[in-house]
Amino acid sequence: MAAGPTFEEMLAAQARVRPHIHTTPLLTCKTLDRQAGARLYFKCENFQKTGSFKARGAVNAVFSLGEAEAARGVVTHSSGNHAAALAYAAGLRGIPAWIVMPANSPQAKQSAVAGYGGRVTLCEPTLEARESTAQALVAQTGARLIHPYDNPAVIAGQATAALEMLEEQPELEVIVAPVSGGGLLSGTGIAAKSRKPGMRVVGAEPRNADDAFRSLAARRLEPAAQAVTIADGLRATLCPLTLAILRERVDEILLVKEEEIVSAMRSVWERMKLVIEPSAAVAAAAGAALAARHAEPALRIGILLTGGNLDLGRLPFA
Amino acid sequence: MAAGPTFEEMLAAQARVRPHIHTTPLLTCKTLDRQAGARLYFKCENFQKTGSFKARGAVNAVFSLGEAEAARGVVTHSSGNHAAALAYAAGLRGIPAWIVMPANSPQAKQSAVAGYGGRVTLCEPTLEARESTAQALVAQTGARLIHPYDNPAVIAGQATAALEMLEEQPELEVIVAPVSGGGLLSGTGIAAKSRKPGMRVVGAEPRNADDAFRSLAARRLEPAAQAVTIADGLRATLCPLTLAILRERVDEILLVKEEEIVSAMRSVWERMKLVIEPSAAVAAAAGAALAARHAEPALRIGILLTGGNLDLGRLPFA
Repeated sequence: MAAGPTFEEMLAAQARVRPHIHTTPLLTCKTLDRQAGARLYFKCENFQKTGSFKARGAVNAVFSLGEAEAARGVVTHSSGNHAAALAYAAGLRGIPAWIVMPANSPQAKQSAVAGYGGRVTLCEPTLEARESTAQALVAQTGARLIHPYDNPAVIAGQATAALEMLEEQPELEVIVAPVSGGGLLSGTGIAAKSRKPGMRVVGAEPRNADDAFRSLAARRLEPAAQAVTIADGLRATLCPLTLAILRERVDEILLVKEEEIVSAMRSVWERMKLVIEPSAAVAAAAGAALAARHAEPALRIGILLTGGNLDLGRLPFA
Repeated sequence: MAAGPTFEEMLAAQARVRPHIHTTPLLTCKTLDRQAGARLYFKCENFQKTGSFKARGAVNAVFSLGEAEAARGVVTHSSGNHAAALAYAAGLRGIPAWIVMPANSPQAKQSAVAGYGGRVTLCEPTLEARESTAQALVAQTGARLIHPYDNPAVIAGQATAALEMLEEQPELEVIVAPVSGGGLLSGTGIAAKSRKPGMRVVGAEPRNADDAFRSLAARRLEPAAQAVTIADGLRATLCPLTLAILRERVDEILLVKEEEIVSAMRSVWERMKLVIEPSAAVAAAAGAALAARHAEPALRIGILLTGGNLDLGRLPFA
C-alpha cells in the first residue's frame, strides 16, 4: 500500500476546506452528450476559488499546519495554478507565501499569484531550477515547502472534488481527471474507489507529455520528454508517491493529441459557454474518446474540468 | 399606456416556458464586486437553451399560437439569436420555422439555426431586405411572422428572465439590460416595476449604436446611425411599441464605448470563466459604470448577461 492519504483523511479534508472553497456545479450538456454518445458530467473547477481545483489541496495543506509552523509561512514552486492556490490559502490564514514560478508561466497566472498576496520569485523553466530556488527560500525563511503534489495533505485536498462529484451524482461509473504530477489523479483514485468500489478512474494525458503513461507501463518513473503541449499545466512528472498510488488506483491513462485538446476546448467553450484552460480540455477530450470506445449511451462519465486560467490574448482558435 | 403585455401575461408566460427553458443561475464574483464597488448579480442567459435569452420569447410566442395556426409554421428575420431561438421553439412544437438572416451574420449563428432544424434564407444586411424577404416567405407559406421584438408574446417571454432574477434575489435595486429593438428591456421594465415598485431599470446601449438613447431623448423614433459596434446583436432599432413601453418603464439608457465593451467582456471571461458575447458585455460595462457613479458598496445591481454566441475565431483580445 502506498503511503498516500487515507479515505478518512480525505473526509477530514472535505470538512476542513469546505468553508473556504466553492462546491462547484456538475454541469451537463445535451449537445455534447449526443456528440459523445454517453452521459457526461462536467465538474466545473474553473469556477473554483483561484480558478482551479488546486485551491482544494492548498487550503487543506495550509490549514493542516500547526500554529507555530504556519506562522513561518509556506513556499512552493508551480507553473501557475498551485501557486495562485497556495497564495490564496496562505492569505486566508494570514501567513506569508513565497512562490517560485518558471519565467515562462502565463502572465495571467503570475498576476493572479501577486493579486492573492503571494511573493513571486521567477526562475528558469526546469524542474531542477524550481526545486533549488524553492529550497533556498525554505533555508532563508524557515517556511514550510508545500509541494504541488508530493504531499499527502495536498492529495487529500484534491480528492474532495471527486467526493463532491459522487455526492451529487452517485451513479457515475467513470471519472476522468488529467494527470501531470499525479496529485489530483491519485486523490481521485483513492476517493472514488473507496466511496464506490467498482468505479473506474481514468487519467488523461497529452500524447506530447506522456511520462505518466510510460511510467505506469514501465512500473518505474520514466523521465519527461521535452513536453511540447498546449496544456501548460500538465508538464510536471510523477513522483514515487503518486506513481505508487496510480499503480493501485487508476485503471488506465488515455493519451490525447494536441488537435483533440484544442477541439475539445472549443466544444466546451462554444457549447457550454465555459472558459476552461487547455489542461481541463485534456480531460474533456479523453472523456469523449472513452465514450466513443464504449458506445453505451447510458454510460455516466464524470469529467474534471480542472481550471479556467489562461491568457485570452493567446488562444488556439483560428 | 402602451399596448404591451400585462404583468399577468408575463406570469402566464413564465408558466408556459418553464418546461422548455433553463432557470439560469444568478452568479456573483467577489473580485468584480470589489472592482466595481457594488454588489453585482449576473443572470447567466449565456447558459440558456440556444445560448441566449431569446429562447424565452420565442418559446412563449410559439406555444401561444392556436393549433391550426401553429401547424402552418413560423417565420422571422434576425441577426442570429432570435433566429436560433425560434428554430428551437418550433422544433419543440414540431412545426416548421423559416429563418431570414443577414448574409453577414456570424457563421456560428447560422450553423446553430440550421442545427435546430430552421430553414435558413440569407438576405442583404439591411432592415428593408430582412423585412421584405420575411414577408415573401409569409405570403408563400401562410406561416406566422414572429417578429424578434415587435410582438407582445415575445416581450412577455423575455420578461421571464427578470422575474427569475427577482425571485432569486428580491433585494435587487437596479436591473441593467442591453437594448437593441427593445423587447428584452421592455419586458424587463414592465416585469421589474410591477413586481417591485421602486426598482430602477436601466438600458445599456453601445455609443456607436445609440438610436434607443436618441429616440427616448427625442420622444420619437430616431433612425439608426450606421452602427459600427462589436456588439453585433444590438444593431436593431426600436419600434413604436417598444419605444412607448421604454418611455414609461425605463429610467435611463447608459451609453458604452467600444473599448468598455471589450474590457467588460474580458473581465467576465477572465474572472467569472463565462463565455459571453459582446452584446452581453454591454450590460456588464453599463453595470460597472452605474456602480462607479453611485459609489455605494451595498447597492445591488442585476445584470442581464444575454447570451454567449460568438465566433471564437474572431475574438477582440490581443
